[in-house]
Amino acid sequence: MLIIGELINTSRKAIREAVEARNTAYIQEVAKQQEAAGANYLDVNCGTMVGQEIECMEWLVNTIQEVTDIPLCIDSPDENALKAGLMLAKTTNGKRMINSTTAEEKRYQAVIPLVKEFNAKIVALCIEDAGMPETAEDRLRIASKLVDDMEKEGIQQDDIYLDPLIKPLSTNDKYGKSVLDAIYAIKQKYPAVHLTCGLSNISYGFPNRAVLNRLFVVQTMTVGMDGYILNPTDKAMMGVVYAGQALLGNDRFCKNYLKAHRKGLYE
Amino acid sequence: MLIIGELINTSRKAIREAVEARNTAYIQEVAKQQEAAGANYLDVNCGTMVGQEIECMEWLVNTIQEVTDIPLCIDSPDENALKAGLMLAKTTNGKRMINSTTAEEKRYQAVIPLVKEFNAKIVALCIEDAGMPETAEDRLRIASKLVDDMEKEGIQQDDIYLDPLIKPLSTNDKYGKSVLDAIYAIKQKYPAVHLTCGLSNISYGFPNRAVLNRLFVVQTMTVGMDGYILNPTDKAMMGVVYAGQALLGNDRFCKNYLKAHRKGLYE
Repeated sequence: MLIIGELINTSRKAIREAVEARNTAYIQEVAKQQEAAGANYLDVNCGTMVGQEIECMEWLVNTIQEVTDIPLCIDSPDENALKAGLMLAKTTNGKRMINSTTAEEKRYQAVIPLVKEFNAKIVALCIEDAGMPETAEDRLRIASKLVDDMEKEGIQQDDIYLDPLIKPLSTNDKYGKSVLDAIYAIKQKYPAVHLTCGLSNISYGFPNRAVLNRLFVVQTMTVGMDGYILNPTDKAMMGVVYAGQALLGNDRFCKNYLKAHRKGLYE
Repeated sequence: MLIIGELINTSRKAIREAVEARNTAYIQEVAKQQEAAGANYLDVNCGTMVGQEIECMEWLVNTIQEVTDIPLCIDSPDENALKAGLMLAKTTNGKRMINSTTAEEKRYQAVIPLVKEFNAKIVALCIEDAGMPETAEDRLRIASKLVDDMEKEGIQQDDIYLDPLIKPLSTNDKYGKSVLDAIYAIKQKYPAVHLTCGLSNISYGFPNRAVLNRLFVVQTMTVGMDGYILNPTDKAMMGVVYAGQALLGNDRFCKNYLKAHRKGLYE
């Protein structure tokens, strides 16, 4: 299970203000909190800092790496910002990760050279030039194209994290099911590929969003998802991740579950 | 999704006392509460009333049916008590249900004639004369024998509720996974068969039992379980059932989920 901490993102007001003020202490505190809470990677996204994204990315990567050695997930819509982050990101404890490519031709052609140059892991969203997927079959088709194309480039399945693209249940009551079916089908076809997602779309427009998000984590991991981009300091969510993994037989002697209990995640 | 309300069971102290005192009002209140909370069946079990089980069963069935028409699940280790309950149980809103048979020869031979005589639904536990199942394969083998044998007796798959037999995760960290794999395999082999279980064994010996029980409901329904014997007045549990069903695409326009929200199940 790979937990990518999502908190360092300038779309969040406190992070944006900290980046603007070059508030080293705040960014480092958020990095350390996520590491302590169990994040395996830290996402770094300053895509909202239009016109200064590259220098903000460089400052963020250096600032974070002063206090933690966990690997970074460099996240940007702009390939120059990706490259700036990747050049500074260390590989002491694991490969760099890039967030993200899609199957859209232009994006794909811009990002894949970076994956190869930096021998990075890659988050690949199931989006194509024709648009967003609707059904499980759409997702499997786009995922297959992504994996087959990347393998031709020499990228290992183990370095690919497919995001099946979660859409709001409030707009179509089959959107949860179509993602679950897609995950299962992708893992059947490509057992060594990983799956990840940002969750919160599933609950958009509905009440009790945190409940829906947590249960969808449990459902997706039950059918084969093994990575999440989430807030690791959310105790209830991380409690669900550890308990879900224990129930799935992925936690030897349920040690992580019992550790999570002692850390107070279920209080 | 079939919810069998588990509360009317003399192994619970308050129910035992109410049965001993023939406290009609209390039993009827528990029956009505379970119906109001969304139970589709009410389990009736007075197996602890040794020597008076038959008269207690008759009193319970009559008492409950004075205030509700939802069908009953007659639950006893003794076939005479089963028969006593079945003879009084009405079929106004659905077939009677029997809880339970196993693949143990003696039990099976005692219970199957009742299933046929009363045209009842039957809970069938994956236990055989050799003992309890250990692996997913054990469960599939026992389940297959049960379904194949019952079909030869003319019992429809749609009337069979297989219980894969849940064992404590605290005694083996693969016991959750083996149940999930068994559910999936059974549904692949017998798509029209139903699956049900009592949940609480999964969390025996571990802290935060309610959390584990709720998440295991979500995991088991994700791979095909469609019935639970549980306490329907447990709001958090029922909230998880409705949210899980919505996420699985089994709730048209998510109406039941939104209704559960308005009923305060997520507060």
